[in-house]
Amino acid sequence: MKTPPISIVKSVKFKAKPEATTLGFGKYFTDHMFTAKYSVEKGWHQAEVGPYKSFEIDPGASVLHYGQALFEGMKAFKQENEKVVLFRPEFNWHRMVAGADRLCMEAPPKDLFLNGIKELVKIDQEWIPDQPGSLYIRPTLVGTEAFLGVRPSNEMLFFAILSPVSSYYAEGSAPVNIWVETNYLRAAPGGLGATKAAANYAVSLKAALDAKKKGYSQVLWLDFSREYIEEVGTMNVFFVFENEIVTPSLDGTILGGGVRHSVIQLLKLWNLPISERKLKLSEVLEASKNGKLKEAFGTGTAAVISPIGELATESWKINLTNNGQQGELSKKIYDELTGVQYGRREDKLGWLQPL
Amino acid sequence: MKTPPISIVKSVKFKAKPEATTLGFGKYFTDHMFTAKYSVEKGWHQAEVGPYKSFEIDPGASVLHYGQALFEGMKAFKQENEKVVLFRPEFNWHRMVAGADRLCMEAPPKDLFLNGIKELVKIDQEWIPDQPGSLYIRPTLVGTEAFLGVRPSNEMLFFAILSPVSSYYAEGSAPVNIWVETNYLRAAPGGLGATKAAANYAVSLKAALDAKKKGYSQVLWLDFSREYIEEVGTMNVFFVFENEIVTPSLDGTILGGGVRHSVIQLLKLWNLPISERKLKLSEVLEASKNGKLKEAFGTGTAAVISPIGELATESWKINLTNNGQQGELSKKIYDELTGVQYGRREDKLGWLQPL
Repeated sequence: MKTPPISIVKSVKFKAKPEATTLGFGKYFTDHMFTAKYSVEKGWHQAEVGPYKSFEIDPGASVLHYGQALFEGMKAFKQENEKVVLFRPEFNWHRMVAGADRLCMEAPPKDLFLNGIKELVKIDQEWIPDQPGSLYIRPTLVGTEAFLGVRPSNEMLFFAILSPVSSYYAEGSAPVNIWVETNYLRAAPGGLGATKAAANYAVSLKAALDAKKKGYSQVLWLDFSREYIEEVGTMNVFFVFENEIVTPSLDGTILGGGVRHSVIQLLKLWNLPISERKLKLSEVLEASKNGKLKEAFGTGTAAVISPIGELATESWKINLTNNGQQGELSKKIYDELTGVQYGRREDKLGWLQPL
Repeated sequence: MKTPPISIVKSVKFKAKPEATTLGFGKYFTDHMFTAKYSVEKGWHQAEVGPYKSFEIDPGASVLHYGQALFEGMKAFKQENEKVVLFRPEFNWHRMVAGADRLCMEAPPKDLFLNGIKELVKIDQEWIPDQPGSLYIRPTLVGTEAFLGVRPSNEMLFFAILSPVSSYYAEGSAPVNIWVETNYLRAAPGGLGATKAAANYAVSLKAALDAKKKGYSQVLWLDFSREYIEEVGTMNVFFVFENEIVTPSLDGTILGGGVRHSVIQLLKLWNLPISERKLKLSEVLEASKNGKLKEAFGTGTAAVISPIGELATESWKINLTNNGQQGELSKKIYDELTGVQYGRREDKLGWLQPL
């Protein structure tokens, strides 16, 4: 696949940058965006870093009717020496390629994906917040051909936008309370669960809203049998038992997160007993009763490492708050991960890429 | 919910109308479209029938990232006396309301939905093809608020576009061949299967493409146990056994089609033994072996009544072609349905609405 050159068009209007304290997550966008187009006839073309702005879309476009939409979430960090780094961007490219295949779309080639994002982050690097903030990068691929017969689109738009962020949850790094969802289902075998398809989020909104009404930050998704643990909305999940750390194995219904993968790498590096395996909800409840459940935490690009304070269903609750503090292991992982990201610790696993 | 007035802005440029023989399905769009906006603060506002054109969308809009997109499919017919009628538009409104609730969206109020569509069809009525063609109407609801934290959008765009169509399948009303899909899954309990969400189509594209490569027009979806029949891509499905006509019951994973509902009404009116119940694939195979399976057909707004010629899996094939002709019952239903739509037969069930 031939990669087109990337043209750069600088914005002439610049937005006021928000105060660090008001950032939250995904509320503000920077001055520029990266876009590239694909058609079956032309291949990838018209690659440009230009002003952030609304784009025109035909009302018959595939993304509006048949949900051909796939995205990634990644981050850029400003280190103490002002050096800007990307965290594992190739991981995100690989995942987008796999997702594009499942959704019958054409993913951008690696160099277009990486170079477009790097040029974009470069031009907007003044937007990167200081620690503990970061620049969230949202690469997105959508079908743009206008037709109504159900089939894959022959035209795509790839774009990346940037948002300066602090914490994903209002709780910051304090423990979040999670509701175990038994009514709705996120994904089943043969579906889209392993991809970062927009469709997976459409199905999840109502469950998250119901959980919020009950006072919970997110839901824990179970598999279609409602027996096995899959993931938390927007995060993968880890349970720290007395002699084993467990995260559900990737069996096709779970989104394999970049932070999930990095945490597994770290735990192996530290010679800790990490298992990727099927995990029953009843096993977690049992371990909690026996005092063998030490910690639970979520992992995600947006949320980083989020300790779980409470896990609740209609019939039971597990309290895991360590006096409101982060658990020992999740704190150690958080410190290492953010230490590498901000350049305070050595990047032993080769996670970082300079611009 | 207060409904805004609908303003009418006539296009000044008119497209050439395609030849009836080239129509196919969903390839051409008329001169106008209907749009209306919603926000939590303003409610529904800015309702307009105006020129068909691309609209601006923020790259952070919910529909592009979290799949908040829901649509309907309905039709307008030109009868022999030149009278234009809509087929069961209230059915489609009700289904959109139910789908919007599942996707945490706000559906347009009934009068806005119906009046907007009627004004639109009126302004573009010269586009309605003669028999056996019709005007396909695509009402669509998408989330437009720009933010990246996963939650429902506070802003929506509702729009309706029109496409003059002939047959959905290249086969016309000749039997279509269907592949029984056992690898991919359309929907599971707790998911979006019962809604006309864009997400359901995203998940289906690869299966349909794989079937096409094998020479089949569409797939037959099974439930998550891969034992029970659910629906055909873009159609509901009916099996005509010796003493019973069966269509799968709506248990939350199947899209309840308007033509499906109309066919059930007709069969009841005719005192034929129609059952909505769970139906095993093995029962169909068994009945075929015993000579008790007489016909099978799909129903849908786009496809109307499509006889099924062949049903195939990796291990077996059922041939249902009645010497390449439509089966007796599906022909009778097709004649009645299209007879009512084109005004040749009495509208006993109150399906039609004038403009």
